Amino acid sequence: MKIEAVDFFYLSMPEVTTEGDGSQDALLVRVVAGGHIGWGECEASPLVSIAAFVCPMSHGACRPVAASVLGQSVDGPEDIQRIAGQIELDSMDLLQASHTWSGVEIALWDLLGKSREEPVWKLLGYKRAYRKLPYASQLFGETAEETYRLASAARSQNFRAVKFGWGPIGRFDLKTDNDHFQAAREGLGADTLLMVDVGQIFRHDVEAAAARLPMLEKVGTLWLEEPFHTSALDAYAALSRRGTLKLAGGEGAHNFYMARHLIDYGNVGFIQIDTGRIGGIGPAKCVADYAVSKGVTFVNHTFTSHLALSASLQPYAGLRSDEICEYPLTPKPLAVELTSNHLRRDTEGYVNVPDAPGLGVEISRAAVRRYLVEVVIKAKNRVLFDSGGLNI
Amino acid sequence: MKIEAVDFFYLSMPEVTTEGDGSQDALLVRVVAGGHIGWGECEASPLVSIAAFVCPMSHGACRPVAASVLGQSVDGPEDIQRIAGQIELDSMDLLQASHTWSGVEIALWDLLGKSREEPVWKLLGYKRAYRKLPYASQLFGETAEETYRLASAARSQNFRAVKFGWGPIGRFDLKTDNDHFQAAREGLGADTLLMVDVGQIFRHDVEAAAARLPMLEKVGTLWLEEPFHTSALDAYAALSRRGTLKLAGGEGAHNFYMARHLIDYGNVGFIQIDTGRIGGIGPAKCVADYAVSKGVTFVNHTFTSHLALSASLQPYAGLRSDEICEYPLTPKPLAVELTSNHLRRDTEGYVNVPDAPGLGVEISRAAVRRYLVEVVIKAKNRVLFDSGGLNI
Repeated sequence: MKIEAVDFFYLSMPEVTTEGDGSQDALLVRVVAGGHIGWGECEASPLVSIAAFVCPMSHGACRPVAASVLGQSVDGPEDIQRIAGQIELDSMDLLQASHTWSGVEIALWDLLGKSREEPVWKLLGYKRAYRKLPYASQLFGETAEETYRLASAARSQNFRAVKFGWGPIGRFDLKTDNDHFQAAREGLGADTLLMVDVGQIFRHDVEAAAARLPMLEKVGTLWLEEPFHTSALDAYAALSRRGTLKLAGGEGAHNFYMARHLIDYGNVGFIQIDTGRIGGIGPAKCVADYAVSKGVTFVNHTFTSHLALSASLQPYAGLRSDEICEYPLTPKPLAVELTSNHLRRDTEGYVNVPDAPGLGVEISRAAVRRYLVEVVIKAKNRVLFDSGGLNI
Repeated sequence: MKIEAVDFFYLSMPEVTTEGDGSQDALLVRVVAGGHIGWGECEASPLVSIAAFVCPMSHGACRPVAASVLGQSVDGPEDIQRIAGQIELDSMDLLQASHTWSGVEIALWDLLGKSREEPVWKLLGYKRAYRKLPYASQLFGETAEETYRLASAARSQNFRAVKFGWGPIGRFDLKTDNDHFQAAREGLGADTLLMVDVGQIFRHDVEAAAARLPMLEKVGTLWLEEPFHTSALDAYAALSRRGTLKLAGGEGAHNFYMARHLIDYGNVGFIQIDTGRIGGIGPAKCVADYAVSKGVTFVNHTFTSHLALSASLQPYAGLRSDEICEYPLTPKPLAVELTSNHLRRDTEGYVNVPDAPGLGVEISRAAVRRYLVEVVIKAKNRVLFDSGGLNI
């Protein structure tokens, strides 16, 4: 099958705020080859990721992503890997390339699965997919009281695991943070797993992060996520030796190596991979394999639609013991409406990885039309991208 | 001084080819604050880097670079560091941000130096700047004969050090590579330093790279540069144990951490930093300090104009023993004409880091007009960038 077309759809809520909610916009990718259509999603700035697909070449190692994709043949997983390898060399100096390629790569897996009438996890070599225990992923409240209410609400929605992230943590004093941690635990009750994500707030300050460890350990936190910059490996390693709490990180990894370094040098206990950033499902599967070999737990990272959710689950669908999965609790309407089917929790609260061909998620064309924003990019007297020409 | 304006100029040769020559286009940055003008250069895809400055916000941790820069005050180096820290958090999910910020950061140092009437290296804390021994940086020939001619030509231009890069190396058989290495040495004679850059061609294949080590050692190569992907730290470390040849790398580092990892985990002997990619002069200086503490030699990476060359020299201008510097031998006319003064070699073949305020390099407005290409970016019904509105 020859890749005939790759189209990008920049979708956005009418208003985008500074809250740490990644579901406020989306970059949907559609790939057409051999009479099949595949869908993927990039987890990154839509405009910049589109630009990385269509930009003029700067030199042999700074070519647009399109140059390695359009016209290529895809008849099996090895073709996706071949294209990825070509981008690694030919777009070496184009930093945004891996974010752009991620969505295309996911769409190629979806397309390949549809053409073979098999779910993607089977193409990855898994014999079966195990259901995952979703944790409700949400932001801390502005106040401890609000955090308590959010925790209670998640509990009442029957979540057995809840993650709180970002918000005020690390921005004020220790007492504020402690109040939020305690409020979260009180709202959840003793029998719900609690994870905490601080969104790199401590940068590389081990002492600042370490000051929160006793509080987090006291409320029985399963992991502390992203205390530092994704690449602050030394800080991760140092903090991991300061207490019993396991660290989690990896969502910022934009290639396999970065995830591996967090395991090898950063000593994380949970490696969290966003297929929409790391270069897609292929490298994420490599991370899952590597994590297994090192006794580290693989967890998906996702914060947008159920298309992205399904893509994020494929790399570790067949790993029974890596049970926990991220599950956005209150995504924006755009992210909900974007797919016409959803990965609902079953009666026991688990999420089943789709069994249908490809990613098993259908795109709502009406939603795409509803949230599509105009993008026009011209350079060197050529129109490189015009959303007005998109056929939905 | 308040940052009033940041303008980007996408410059390009009329024709851009797939050769590995980074001087075929350029992204020039002009910053205006407090009645002063500073100039910088990004080393990356111009269109994508512009998009990362002007893109709509996706969420609180995926804001355009402009949001952290425009309107900020810059009265000292600590302000540049503060802005860099804000971008690290607020543009965390915008991968291209560090490439974009690099050029702005360089322009801010230039502006700060001009306002204080001091060269940038003095602002960095150096008491004096030592002249550097430039190596002529050029690509391997298509054939060994051409490589020989190029080597002879560089020698006749009185270069005491020459680096050959990319081209056919690693793409064919061992004999081809060996012929090129020998031709380079023969053309240079015994008394010229020879370095070899293979442009990540072996990805992470230690054996393929190791097969070239005896050949490279035989012709007395000073370093082998970028045998692998910037992040293939394990491969670097493994190869460094396979022979006596020192490894060099780091041009792909887009933050301080990545460079540090190449030293700590990759065991490189030379760390090569492009200020136009790593986030500018500030983080590059941090790498220089760290390299000194680890006995690793700092080398600039640069392949475009003498504005970029001057910026790349500042971080280690005061390190006497780190003497070697990259010096593009045959840049395209755009890169030559872009500056109205140049860092010429002195009679002994050395390059002096400018003593003039800022980066000590003047921009030729005529050249900017000559090579400027049209860029228009619209999104969400707003014109985010229009090169037609640039005042040169």
